[in-house]
Parts: sequence; structure tokens; C-alpha cells
Amino acid sequence: MIIIMRDNISDKEIDFVVSKLKNVGLDVNVSRGVERTVIGAIGEENLADKEMLQSLPGVENVIRVMKPYKIVARSYHRTDTLVDIGGHKFGGEQLQVIAGPCSVETQPQMDAAAVAVVAAGCRLMRAGAFKPRTSPYTFQGAGVEGLQMFQQAAKPQRLPIVTELMDVRSIDAFMEHEVDAIQIGTRNMQNFDLLKEVGRIHKPVILKRGMSATVSEWLMSAEYIAAGGNHNIIFCERGVRSFETYYRNMLDVTAIPVLKRETHLPVIVDPSHAGGKAWMVPALAKAAVAAGADGLLIEMHPKPCDAWCDADQALTPEELATLMQQLDAVARAVGRTLL
Amino acid sequence: MIIIMRDNISDKEIDFVVSKLKNVGLDVNVSRGVERTVIGAIGEENLADKEMLQSLPGVENVIRVMKPYKIVARSYHRTDTLVDIGGHKFGGEQLQVIAGPCSVETQPQMDAAAVAVVAAGCRLMRAGAFKPRTSPYTFQGAGVEGLQMFQQAAKPQRLPIVTELMDVRSIDAFMEHEVDAIQIGTRNMQNFDLLKEVGRIHKPVILKRGMSATVSEWLMSAEYIAAGGNHNIIFCERGVRSFETYYRNMLDVTAIPVLKRETHLPVIVDPSHAGGKAWMVPALAKAAVAAGADGLLIEMHPKPCDAWCDADQALTPEELATLMQQLDAVARAVGRTLL
Amino acid sequence: MIIIMRDNISDKEIDFVVSKLKNVGLDVNVSRGVERTVIGAIGEENLADKEMLQSLPGVENVIRVMKPYKIVARSYHRTDTLVDIGGHKFGGEQLQVIAGPCSVETQPQMDAAAVAVVAAGCRLMRAGAFKPRTSPYTFQGAGVEGLQMFQQAAKPQRLPIVTELMDVRSIDAFMEHEVDAIQIGTRNMQNFDLLKEVGRIHKPVILKRGMSATVSEWLMSAEYIAAGGNHNIIFCERGVRSFETYYRNMLDVTAIPVLKRETHLPVIVDPSHAGGKAWMVPALAKAAVAAGADGLLIEMHPKPCDAWCDADQALTPEELATLMQQLDAVARAVGRTLL
Amino acid sequence: MIIIMRDNISDKEIDFVVSKLKNVGLDVNVSRGVERTVIGAIGEENLADKEMLQSLPGVENVIRVMKPYKIVARSYHRTDTLVDIGGHKFGGEQLQVIAGPCSVETQPQMDAAAVAVVAAGCRLMRAGAFKPRTSPYTFQGAGVEGLQMFQQAAKPQRLPIVTELMDVRSIDAFMEHEVDAIQIGTRNMQNFDLLKEVGRIHKPVILKRGMSATVSEWLMSAEYIAAGGNHNIIFCERGVRSFETYYRNMLDVTAIPVLKRETHLPVIVDPSHAGGKAWMVPALAKAAVAAGADGLLIEMHPKPCDAWCDADQALTPEELATLMQQLDAVARAVGRTLL
Repeated sequence: MIIIMRDNISDKEIDFVVSKLKNVGLDVNVSRGVERTVIGAIGEENLADKEMLQSLPGVENVIRVMKPYKIVARSYHRTDTLVDIGGHKFGGEQLQVIAGPCSVETQPQMDAAAVAVVAAGCRLMRAGAFKPRTSPYTFQGAGVEGLQMFQQAAKPQRLPIVTELMDVRSIDAFMEHEVDAIQIGTRNMQNFDLLKEVGRIHKPVILKRGMSATVSEWLMSAEYIAAGGNHNIIFCERGVRSFETYYRNMLDVTAIPVLKRETHLPVIVDPSHAGGKAWMVPALAKAAVAAGADGLLIEMHPKPCDAWCDADQALTPEELATLMQQLDAVARAVGRTLL
Repeated sequence: MIIIMRDNISDKEIDFVVSKLKNVGLDVNVSRGVERTVIGAIGEENLADKEMLQSLPGVENVIRVMKPYKIVARSYHRTDTLVDIGGHKFGGEQLQVIAGPCSVETQPQMDAAAVAVVAAGCRLMRAGAFKPRTSPYTFQGAGVEGLQMFQQAAKPQRLPIVTELMDVRSIDAFMEHEVDAIQIGTRNMQNFDLLKEVGRIHKPVILKRGMSATVSEWLMSAEYIAAGGNHNIIFCERGVRSFETYYRNMLDVTAIPVLKRETHLPVIVDPSHAGGKAWMVPALAKAAVAAGADGLLIEMHPKPCDAWCDADQALTPEELATLMQQLDAVARAVGRTLL
Repeated sequence: MIIIMRDNISDKEIDFVVSKLKNVGLDVNVSRGVERTVIGAIGEENLADKEMLQSLPGVENVIRVMKPYKIVARSYHRTDTLVDIGGHKFGGEQLQVIAGPCSVETQPQMDAAAVAVVAAGCRLMRAGAFKPRTSPYTFQGAGVEGLQMFQQAAKPQRLPIVTELMDVRSIDAFMEHEVDAIQIGTRNMQNFDLLKEVGRIHKPVILKRGMSATVSEWLMSAEYIAAGGNHNIIFCERGVRSFETYYRNMLDVTAIPVLKRETHLPVIVDPSHAGGKAWMVPALAKAAVAAGADGLLIEMHPKPCDAWCDADQALTPEELATLMQQLDAVARAVGRTLL
Repeated sequence: MIIIMRDNISDKEIDFVVSKLKNVGLDVNVSRGVERTVIGAIGEENLADKEMLQSLPGVENVIRVMKPYKIVARSYHRTDTLVDIGGHKFGGEQLQVIAGPCSVETQPQMDAAAVAVVAAGCRLMRAGAFKPRTSPYTFQGAGVEGLQMFQQAAKPQRLPIVTELMDVRSIDAFMEHEVDAIQIGTRNMQNFDLLKEVGRIHKPVILKRGMSATVSEWLMSAEYIAAGGNHNIIFCERGVRSFETYYRNMLDVTAIPVLKRETHLPVIVDPSHAGGKAWMVPALAKAAVAAGADGLLIEMHPKPCDAWCDADQALTPEELATLMQQLDAVARAVGRTLL
């Protein structure tokens, strides 16, 4: 930890900071410059509280030297970690595409979707049974019954299923219906009680980035899950809020190489929620693969015009199949495989 | 609802949109301009799904004419609604300041804080027993024991207490310890299951704005609570995420007049979490009162340098007392009262 | 300057950084922590280039200790600087309001506006002769003829005039028509050639904040002007770009106390361009005064419904007069005066 | 244009809006809904001023139906426009990479850079002679002498040169030194006088996106150039300002497919300024190509550790050569070519 003091301060203020640091067991290095004094704290940074130090008289700024995340950090585990969902590995040479409709609507819709997912060459399926909707007056998801429909459609196709968990009280239902991977949505990235709960079970977790979360906050949310004992975490970039109104969110493609450097865990991208329009999905999906993503989460609906939510961002089965061929070419161009 | 069609489309596409609108019971007005056709849907907008319409072939854009919020809208209830917390009214001529430490630490700390809150002229107290912390390795709050310490300090001073609820499973403890108002924090503004639960009880709710929530999304989150039957909602602006790194969040002072126009419910401001530095609090608090806020939520700690969290943003008891005098003057300048 | 090295680096990389620092004449302090080595450079920071250091092998991060701005910094000049425009001082106890229409349209419009400015109690007038318009197909301003009309309206009322300069080639016209203060608009805050030119003359400059400029970048733009010899600079906060679409820009009220701490120069606020709606102006103007602004820049048009640009944000003469009374009350509540 | 009226308004307000529209020659369609009245204006939208309409009593919102840009719009010119810089075409099947150092430093540096540009397989060269620097105290560029050095290095390699124009007064020097394409930098995207000047000459213009410009504003800036008669415009995405501090700017990869849909002009990407770190460049460059960019602008310096500016974002000659091979593979995967 480095403490930069304001100018025109006295020894008393410097001594007070030094004593606070020594009290918690840190070694101290005081460097008096021409205009500023800089105090370096040597040892385990978590012993000192950054905000407490920042509140001390005469302190201008406090800078952490160490990253606040541990288990999820690449410095903790140098090689890439593979996360397995129902037998399919994320983080290796082969990319994975998880496809399916925004929400579980009816059994025929789910059956048709499952067939289309397989036909396009995808190996995992997504759909929402519990939906985080901005308005209390719109469709809130099929609930537990939706989980049942989902499995009934996916099992015959041998598709592992991925679905969003919004409430700690639904975990038992997720276990009972053998959900293969739990998605933590954007609005719950910092729902710390929910993160702690999924840290206690051993299902893989797909952790979406918060609406305007920094990469560091996102890593810390993963650290919550990891600290509970569950290291099967996959990051999912889905765009962040911006001033641009042409599309729904701004896909942060730079987050892909940044995460690959900072963490050993896999990184996937959701191009559908990022752009919010079906016609943007192919360009964004290809960009994600080219930038090094380990997989994608893509919305596909057997009949987009009849979808009950997010209709405008779903691909048709044919569009998904075409895109998979294109993505395979891009994957091969960057030394990976897809199909 | 207004549907703007792309240029160069055929009658077939227009007819398809029209049939979709008529199917759900809306009247239709087709206006063929020189370059674009615009379709107006007349009737209850919630009958049609904006995203479904947006996905139809030939549609360029869909615009809602009505506001998506109902119960919380000023058009639903023209006069200002007063929300009562422990006998003190928010939304009337008199402003309310809720003060106290970031978190419940010890009984002596809470006792000293309660005395200081009253001494400064504040009539309500805040402190966190359950803390949403970015890191799993930092102090997570005193929990249920914290609620007990809080009441033990506040009761003798006759201070109603306000504290944050993070988990649906803690509601019983909040009821048992007679929390006077429940705070929903920034990270839970779109935790819809939590919103539904506080909608079922009749405690006043202080709903903080999400990290980068639009005013419209914020009003919709309040609508979730109101739709459950609980209309005792107070909005709390606490700054939004921005590119500026000099301070923690950017206080959105414009949100105050905007909310006063859009909703009949009270609006308060948290200048402490907005700026993140104690020295910024007086300027921001005065700005909030001048802009029309109905109250403030201010961090004060008996000994900021010893605080266990957010130390750098807490005022001392003396600073709070001085600020209350200054705020009273600003309140009177805009036709309100404080002390 | 503090250089934080990556983990797992060799002495060779540390030595290389040290030699680069010594080469430019800086003293060096190497602190080897348990996990990271931190190198402190002692001396005049501008001797070393932050980006060059950041590019050296093994360097994780480089942090400046000193502020990059000098002349405009409060550490350079501890007491508040007063800037005089036509005999009226900015930065002292008395606040100044500069009012007038968005743009110079016709002589009768300007004459009526000048009368209304004085009637409301304002002592300076604003209007644009050269307009930065998003579209090449809209009214681009009355140009030099507009300067003439402006003076013809303002002189009889003894109103100093403030108007925007967009092009270095117009400076002679500004001198010739005796413009009292030059406004540098948002889109030109980092038009460095323009800043250098206004640094060479001795007219007061009102420097608006760039659309999404950090406070630090804004101070550096002022430093460009000051480095040329012109220290008569007034900062003008006018809102920054955000994700919120309810209003045009987000007024950054926190920038006021921040600037008052960082610089000795005056700070004013433009509530009209911030909100973009006339009905928001009173709340924002009062907030600005309460937060410590030294003045305001307010749009007023004799007949807003007939205005040629930004019609929706202009107050009527009556609204301006009423607002001035209200602002005077707020100013007095914070120990200042206005009327 | 569509005008949405507030609720509870009278016929008088509706009639006033209608009369304003008819006065400028527009046809009107009034649609009275259950709760709101919507007025449609039919005809050439530019006849009515959106802001004036917005200021009329009773008006809630005004929505444009037509795009404000004309010449640069794809609806104006359906097929892709090819822009030629020194014999190399942008916007066709073959991609172009413009490479070179941030700034012109010395003749040997430029000579070495030119050789490296060709060796890597690039066909155009970039370097800055006039530099927009945040601080007045840092290197401001070699100026006209720099243009000379640039040509002396580039001519023997037959490399067309691209360099930034910051000041209208430098245009003659740019013509004299036969600059092949003029770059308009981020800070000048809305320097309208500069845009008008480059609209009068017939050099190709590379128009960088403003720091936080919307796609629509960017297209309007291009419209300024086009309206002057110069249609040789190339858009260059270079990242936008965001809350994330890990990297310099957030590359907006979604802007690529959006621009390709909205305009017929070519789109390139600058991955170097976006990320701000050399190690991020390969991932971002590949993402841009995969998303459909027509080319790239990449910083390369013969000796990055000695560069005078932006040292940390420049590739070495070897890194550039390797990247070109990788980009060629990605280009082929999406049906384009590079080498």
C-alpha cells in the first residue's frame, strides 16, 4: 500500500499514519520528496483498510499495490482452468456455444428450440425460467414449471441446461431439476448473499457482468463465489451501459483480453443482450471469438416474432446454423475450434 | 405506441404490423409520409409488447407514448404523498435528515452516535447491520446482533431507525427488531424478488438508485414495491457511476426536479456515498436541499478515523451539527424548514 | 512518480527502470515488498515521461504524485483569484449571473433581451454570434454582423458582453467589436491551438467543460491558456454526457467543490445547457449557488417559442426575474450576495 | 416528426402546435388517444425545428422520423463507397492497415519506421507532426518540419502518408507537403470550422470518433465535410470514454456493424488508442476485422521504449509483422483479404 500525503503537512501527520500502519503489523518506508512525502506500507495489504487510511489527516491518496482478488487471480493459478458443464469444457482449445430462447414459454416451443440448438451444432442450451423484468406488469417467467419443461426438452437431445437463478430460495428447485450450470444475471452480480450461496454448492456458475461493473468489481464478485469453495466459475461479458442509444449496451470487447490476463477462469460473451438486435449478433459474436473468448451465449427462438420477451434479439434456427459455420471459420483463424 | 417503419418497405410488412396490433385489441392509425410510414397504436399500451413489435420485419423503431409506471406516477396521484417514518414525515414542508455511521460496530460506538445525531438536530438514525462489501475478505456487518445494538442505542433517544435489507431471509429479523424503515441499497435496486417481498409488508422503504440506473428504471423498481401494496416509498439519489475518478460517484442533482415532476413520492439524497469524501458532503448536501430534496441521508461517526468502513466519508459530530445549521438556512431560502 | 513492478520479475528489469530514471536526473528509492517491488522517483516529475516508463518491461503501473497543472493550481496561489469582466468581479462574495439568448437573431430581439437582462438584475449579457451546431443544415449564427447587433443592444444598457469563439481566425473580429469575455465552448475545450491563441491576449476567458472531460483534463486546458500568459480564466460547468436520456446532460455539481479546492480561479455553472429544459433551470441554478458556484450563465429569450435555437431551454424575462430573487435568497443562505 | 403531447391539455395547445407546423409547410395528422394526443408532421422534417417544437406549451416530446444525415447515409447511396488513399482502396474486399509511430521524432526514427511498415506488409503509413497533448508542457510535435521528415522517409518506400490536422491555418502546409490523407482527431470531431475547411479540399479525410460522441453525432460531423463537397471520408472508431480504468478507452466494436448499416462510407478502427497498451492491440485488432472493419490504424515504433509519446501502446516492428499474419487469417475467415 502506498500513501501519498498532501503538501504542506507536518511530521505529526506523517507519524500518525506510520503508527496506524505499524499497529496492524505492516513495515513502513517513508520517502520525503521535494514537494510530497510518500509512505510505503510493506506486508500483507489486507491488514490495512484503504478507506480508513484515506480518512486520516494529511492523506491525499492511498494506492493498493496488490490486486484485491486472490483465488480467481492468474497469479494464484498460472495455467488456464477448464470448467466443465455436463461434459463440455470451457477454457480449452474448443469453444462452446450455449444457445436457446430468452425464456421458457411452452413445451412445444422448448422442444423445437432444443432440436434447433443441436441442429446448429451447439452442445449446450439456455433458457430462462425465472426472468428479471424491468416492469412488474410483464411476464415474469414460467418458474419451477419452466425448469421442468426445459429438462423435458433438453434431456432427449442430451443438452446440458443453463438457466438464471435470481433468489436464494430457488436453489433447491435448481438442484432438484438438475440444472447443469447456474447463471447469475447482470442485476445480481453484486447480490452478495446470492453469491455466497452458489459458492457453497458445486454447480458451475456463469457470472454475468453488472450493468456498469468495473473488471475489478466483477473479479471480486467471482472471488465471493470462490471463497465459498466453488471454483467452477465462467465470466460472461454482456455489454455495459453507455451514452449510446443506437443499441442496448456497449459490448466491452477489451474485457476479454483483460480477463484472460487477470484470471485463469474461462470467459464467454453474450452478443444478444449486448446489442439487443438480432442483426448485430453475427458481427459481435465473431468479434468476441477473434478477441479470444472461450464461448458464447446466444439467443435463438424457433419463432422470434412470437417470443414472449426480448423478441428482437433472438436469431432464427437458420440464422444460428449459418452463424455457427462462420464462427467456426473465425475460431480456426485464431487457432481454436468450434464445431 | 408509435411504430416507425424502415424506408423501402412493402404493404405486406405494414399489414403484418397492423394485424399484430389489432390482434391484441389496439386501434390503428397508419400515416404514410413521403419517405416513411408511421403506425400509431391507440389504446392500452401494455397490451402490446414493444420488443415483439421491434422484431417484426420492416420495423425501424417502436416508441411508447405512455409512461410504463402507474402507481408511483404523478399522473396517478397529483398531490405530494407524505411518507411517515416513526412519526416524522417525508415530502412535506419540513425536511428530514437521517444520520449515523456507515455500520454498526460496537455498543459504545452506537450509543455515542445516537447522542450525536440528536445533538445535531436530526430526528432519525441510520447504520448498517448487513453490509454489501465489494470484497468477501472485509467486515460483512454485525448482522442480527447489530440490529439489537442499533435499537439499544436509538430507543433511549427516541430515534426511528433505518437500515439496509440485503436478503429476503432477513425480513423476519427486521420485523422482530422493529426496524422503522428498510433501505434497499444500490446493488439491489433491481433485485426483483427482494422488491416483491418489501412490497408485501407495510414498512416504509428507502429505495436507493442503482449504480447506473436510469430514472425510468428506478421508478419501475418502485412500481414493483407499490404493485405489491406498499406505497410507502422514498427515493434516495446517491450518485451514479461516471468516468470521473476524482470522487466516487457523480451526484445526479437533476434527478431531484425530474423525480418531483414524475412521481408524487418523496425524494432524498445521500451526499456521503455520492462524493465518498467527508469534505465534499456540505456542498453536496446544500445543493440537494436547494434543488428541492425532501431530506438527506448523511454518514456521521463518533470517531471517523476508527471507523470499520467508509471512514473517509463520515462527518464528525461537530461537523454534522455545523452542517445542520447551514442546511436550515438553505432550506428556509427555498421555502422549507429543517430544524 | 511511483513505479509498481509486476510480480515475478528479475533484478535486470528493476535496474533498467532505475537507470532510465537516473538518466533524466531523478533520485530513486527501491522498496522490495514480499510480492511486489515499488520504485519511487524523487524530484521534478515532469523530467520523466509516464507513458515511456509504462512501456518498460516488467512495469505494472506508474503513478504520478504531483498534479500535472501548475499555474492554475491552488497550491501555486493559495487565495481566491478574482476575474474582472467589464468591471464585475467573479470569485468574490458577490455572485454574477450572465444572461441572454442562445443566439443573436435580430436587432429587436437583442434589444428586448438586453432590457430584460437588466430588468432581472443581471449585470452581464451572453448571446452567440458563432454557433456550434450538430447539423450543417441548421442556422450557423449571425457571425460578425451578430457581434455588431450584440454590442448595439448591450452598450446602451452598459452590459459587458460574453460570446463564444470557435475559430482562431475570428479573434481579430472579437477584439474589434470589443467582446468583454471570450467563451470557449464544450466542443473546443481541447482545441489546443485555440487555447494557445486566447492565452496570448488578455481578455477574460470562460472555459466550458468538455462533453466528457475529467476535472483534471479541464484544469490542463486552463493551464494551456495560463501558460500563454492569460490568467483571467473562469471555469464553467455545463453538465457531462451520461446514460440518462431524460435530460440533455448530467450537471456535475460535485465538480464545484472539487474545483474550488484544486484551483484559485472562479467557477460558474450553466444550468440551461445542462438540463436542456427551461423548467429544470431554477432547481439546477439554486443547487449550483448552494454548492459554492461563483456565478451562472443562463439562457433567457424575449420570446422562447420564436427562438432560432435551443428554444426549449430558454427562460422568459419574467421567469428570469423571479429566479434572480430566489437565487439571491440562496446566495445569502450560504454567505454570499447576488442582487 | 411526431409530437407527443402531455396529458390533460386543451385543444388550444394542440391547435398552437398544428399552426406552427402548417406555417412551415408541413401536413399534419392529429391522433387523439385515450390518454395522450399525438401529432404527426408529414413532409420534409428539416422545415421544423425540433427544439422550438419542444418548447411549445403542452408538448411532452418530439421525435424525428427521418435521419438527420443525408449525403453520408446509406439510404442516399445504397452500395459501398470506396475511398482511395494513394492508390489503395478502403471499403472493398481488401483491408488496409495504416501503421507507424505516434509522432514524428527524428529522420532515422522515421526511416526505420517506414522500412518496418513495408516489411510487415502494410501499404500506408501514419505519424503525427502536430500533436494534441493534454499538457502544454509536453512535446507538441515536430510541426511542418515533421511533415518533411515524414515524406522523406515514406516516399522511397512509396507509402502514402496519413497525419493529423489540428488547425485550419496548417492546411496549406498539408497541401504543399502532399499529405495523402488528413486525419481529424477525436478532440476535433466537432470542430465545425475545421470540418468545413476539409470539406472544401479533395483529400481523403479519416474522421476519428469524438471522446464520447454518439454514432449519430459522428455521422453528422461527416455530413459537415460531405456538405462542403468532399465525399472521401473514412470513419475511424478509437474507443470511447467509460468508467473502466483498466484501459484507456472502451473500444466500441458494435459501432462497426452499426456504421456499415447507416453509411456507405468505409469504417476503420484504431486499436492502439482504444486500449492504450501494446499487449491489448492484437486482440482488439482481430475483433475489429472479425466485426467487419475495412481497415486498421496501428501504432508501431522502431524502439517503443524510446518513443517520445504514447510509448506504451506502440508495437515493435516484429510484433506488427506477426500481427499482420494473424489478421490476414481472420480477414479470410470473414471473406476478406489483407496481405
